[in-house]
Amino acid sequence: MYFKDLHILSMKDFSKEMIDHILETAEKLEPIAVRKERSGMLAGKVLGVLFFEPSTRTRMSFETAMIRLGGEVLSMGSVDASSISKGETLADTIRVVQSYADAIILRHPKEGAARMASEFSQVPVINAGDGAGHHPTQTLLDLYTIKRESKLEGVKIALAGDMKYGRTVHSLCYALAHYGADITLVSPDELRMPYEIIKDLEARGVNVRQADSIDEAITEVDVLYVTRIQKERFPDPAEYLRVASSLQITPELLENAKSHLKIMHPLPRVNEIDPLVDSTSHACYFKQAFYGVPIRMALLALVMGGME
Amino acid sequence: MYFKDLHILSMKDFSKEMIDHILETAEKLEPIAVRKERSGMLAGKVLGVLFFEPSTRTRMSFETAMIRLGGEVLSMGSVDASSISKGETLADTIRVVQSYADAIILRHPKEGAARMASEFSQVPVINAGDGAGHHPTQTLLDLYTIKRESKLEGVKIALAGDMKYGRTVHSLCYALAHYGADITLVSPDELRMPYEIIKDLEARGVNVRQADSIDEAITEVDVLYVTRIQKERFPDPAEYLRVASSLQITPELLENAKSHLKIMHPLPRVNEIDPLVDSTSHACYFKQAFYGVPIRMALLALVMGGME
Amino acid sequence: MYFKDLHILSMKDFSKEMIDHILETAEKLEPIAVRKERSGMLAGKVLGVLFFEPSTRTRMSFETAMIRLGGEVLSMGSVDASSISKGETLADTIRVVQSYADAIILRHPKEGAARMASEFSQVPVINAGDGAGHHPTQTLLDLYTIKRESKLEGVKIALAGDMKYGRTVHSLCYALAHYGADITLVSPDELRMPYEIIKDLEARGVNVRQADSIDEAITEVDVLYVTRIQKERFPDPAEYLRVASSLQITPELLENAKSHLKIMHPLPRVNEIDPLVDSTSHACYFKQAFYGVPIRMALLALVMGGME
Repeated sequence: MYFKDLHILSMKDFSKEMIDHILETAEKLEPIAVRKERSGMLAGKVLGVLFFEPSTRTRMSFETAMIRLGGEVLSMGSVDASSISKGETLADTIRVVQSYADAIILRHPKEGAARMASEFSQVPVINAGDGAGHHPTQTLLDLYTIKRESKLEGVKIALAGDMKYGRTVHSLCYALAHYGADITLVSPDELRMPYEIIKDLEARGVNVRQADSIDEAITEVDVLYVTRIQKERFPDPAEYLRVASSLQITPELLENAKSHLKIMHPLPRVNEIDPLVDSTSHACYFKQAFYGVPIRMALLALVMGGME
Repeated sequence: MYFKDLHILSMKDFSKEMIDHILETAEKLEPIAVRKERSGMLAGKVLGVLFFEPSTRTRMSFETAMIRLGGEVLSMGSVDASSISKGETLADTIRVVQSYADAIILRHPKEGAARMASEFSQVPVINAGDGAGHHPTQTLLDLYTIKRESKLEGVKIALAGDMKYGRTVHSLCYALAHYGADITLVSPDELRMPYEIIKDLEARGVNVRQADSIDEAITEVDVLYVTRIQKERFPDPAEYLRVASSLQITPELLENAKSHLKIMHPLPRVNEIDPLVDSTSHACYFKQAFYGVPIRMALLALVMGGME
Repeated sequence: MYFKDLHILSMKDFSKEMIDHILETAEKLEPIAVRKERSGMLAGKVLGVLFFEPSTRTRMSFETAMIRLGGEVLSMGSVDASSISKGETLADTIRVVQSYADAIILRHPKEGAARMASEFSQVPVINAGDGAGHHPTQTLLDLYTIKRESKLEGVKIALAGDMKYGRTVHSLCYALAHYGADITLVSPDELRMPYEIIKDLEARGVNVRQADSIDEAITEVDVLYVTRIQKERFPDPAEYLRVASSLQITPELLENAKSHLKIMHPLPRVNEIDPLVDSTSHACYFKQAFYGVPIRMALLALVMGGME
């Protein structure tokens, strides 16, 4: 498997073998992430961090990953404090930064920004989210969490929340197709998963089912993946509140769950999960946030040639 | 003395022995802070820096301390560029960052934030100021400055400015009680030290006196500690100006001071000290700002197990 | 040549010998900048980065330079998130930071800020631009680009754009006077180079000529240096557009150029250079941005004693 100098732009670019290799590499690096071991694998390397919109968790986990591998971080800082306000194009910014850094992490509000950036960079570009586009490192850390905390092959997973616009959910479903997953969708009628995606998943051999409530879905599944529902999707605030509260995860709701059920959430959460759930054995979302570190270590190590 | 994994939240948690140990550790580390020696004591460690309000001096001295000990800094960045704007709770932020970092520095506008944060963190949390609450590292660097530039045991100190709301001043007075200090307070009537605190200090054996003017206080003391008076405390701007100028430190005022008098100020200063004082041997406030580095090195080294 | 502890404030402070020494040092360090070699030359050193106005490219190239030499970066962060909002003077800020860092990079909107800062610092201050004042590291990287990509001695160079207010252009012309340059100026009538500067350059033996258009100038020169024209210089937006488009560099315009012509631009560019020019062998502006790294490595290494 040869990842050196590869851009990480979209999950669609990866075969199952490639995904497995990333997950296995993350597993090898996890002792460094949990600080049981130290590494100088990327010593002397510089990671260019270009975030054109804030995403604290993603940025900090990338920076932690780089630091834990012995590398250095070069940050553009916040956007309004940058040349962007002078009207520079993304292409020009990338052409300069790629001459300073050994790899670039890009977060950008515009769909397609990462792929465009990759065309102007001689060093690998890692997409850390491009608007309505892709966010492959989120999907990879989701898969890694399922692998480490539950089981990936044949996992029974329920996805709750916004299935229509949630790009991470779509990306995760396609990735799970590689592993023969059994998927239950729970969403308000307004936010159902697009029909074409469901058809497409079924064509890939995935069992996809709709459930009317989390209550109904929760008895059977190994993993419950909760996502945020954005207020802006609802013209009527009352309707938003009704939908959001109907999907809230509470300890009562979990009484019928399997004992090994794991609850995931990409964070930050607002009201989707009652804090009382945090202390149950089901809560897995903080662990999930942590798993962003070994997964991003794996990607950084692979594209900068620290590992093969 | 065992500081490893200890949260540093409030001076009230520390005995005299603990304070002495921190001051002695700082003294041992000072050659590194003045760049006469180098250290890799915290190599491989990551310091999570969470500042929910700006405090450039405090943040920079913590970061310098970490870097000088060979460690790395992971910064949340400014608040408006963070997930906080998406409504995440401090508890959730802490739970994630504590899985990335080996220790956390927290600055937060809400009183009690640091103690709350410590309950969600498996790595030590150091309080870098929580609103009207505590700011223990400021008190420790004040003590260290007195120790290094004057004498701590039995010091005669005058404190001038806002004695009512100034949390650093209260905290310093309590700490000085351990060292048999003799304290003179100079403040406008509106900003006198609360009676209960004075009673409390006297019960701890401190000599506390009120003086009407700095002029009156300055002849006897070893240290003059000046603090800022906040304009917002005065409904009438003219009254503010009158009070502020009556407390301004000028070269003339210093003519009656002891030759070894040291003037301290937590900085930033506005008009409290005439710049003409800077070049006198009394000026000690820039040195004091520097002493933030060895003190914070000591705390970082102790809580992360670099020293015992 | 002894640069250790020297402040880098203005090109006017440097003799030809000093400039040559900086350029030669940059050339020695370039293999590290292009990541063919690694260095720990400034290991244990801390660079204080104080940017009182944003300048992403300049800041990132300084930070890259420091990191590539094994040193560490201590950043003040953005200004509105700093003590400056509490009213602290630049002098006080410098006095504190110089006790934390081994050198200071200062960017400030006020002319003369860097020289003032140097008076309060025991560690070297490097001016990274002070408003209408100086920006010596930009001039040095311009010279270095000419040396590496064209020839410095006797270079025939055309400068196009704002010759009146463009401080980098004036500074570059004076520096080129050391190398017997032949200079052609192309600018709108409103933005001609001040007569005293032209006289001054001629007194230093420089051949200075005015051309009416880039078309006229381009056939003879080795280097074409393009600068931005600021909209704000023109009361009439239509007049700005007319002037700006008359100076735009297009592939057609380059048909009459010498084959070895190099086009430079300090970046960020807006519309001054057609992106179609980027893929021609004439385009040199991204290389120029990269050369900021070896030049700044040279300055950091020299003033902090990493090299002599």
